[in-house]
Amino acid sequence: MVPTTRPSALVRLFARNLRGARSRAGLSQEALADEAGLHRTYVSSVERAERNISILNIERLAAALKKEPWELLHPDPTES
Amino acid sequence: MVPTTRPSALVRLFARNLRGARSRAGLSQEALADEAGLHRTYVSSVERAERNISILNIERLAAALKKEPWELLHPDPTES
Repeated sequence: MVPTTRPSALVRLFARNLRGARSRAGLSQEALADEAGLHRTYVSSVERAERNISILNIERLAAALKKEPWELLHPDPTES
Repeated sequence: MVPTTRPSALVRLFARNLRGARSRAGLSQEALADEAGLHRTYVSSVERAERNISILNIERLAAALKKEPWELLHPDPTES
């Protein structure tokens, strides 16, 4: 679903953090999606800030990345 | 919607943090709901860990509480 309005600040922050954490983990979108039990196109749309992701999917993605969920919402995420 | 299985750890953590932050802010569920543009029964169900809340509603509730969204997902939320 492509949004018709500019995504919220938190949606954009999550998108950026997710992409950064996935990239640092050396995972493709498909590998992360598989690990989290989600679809590659879903992960892709989240990283484009096109999704109003739910807390359960935030939890699944964080677990797959071995991050704490709150880190993915933090404006200065750790580089680990 | 009453879940048939135990809520996830993050859903329960968010529920607990939301209730704590709202209580410390001296707000009723109705006052918080009004401030966030949500319904009182929705806030109540989130605090009972019965909802798979979306990131946009997390953002709305955090703004209404003058908290950072990540604080509401943190296992040791600040007492401020």
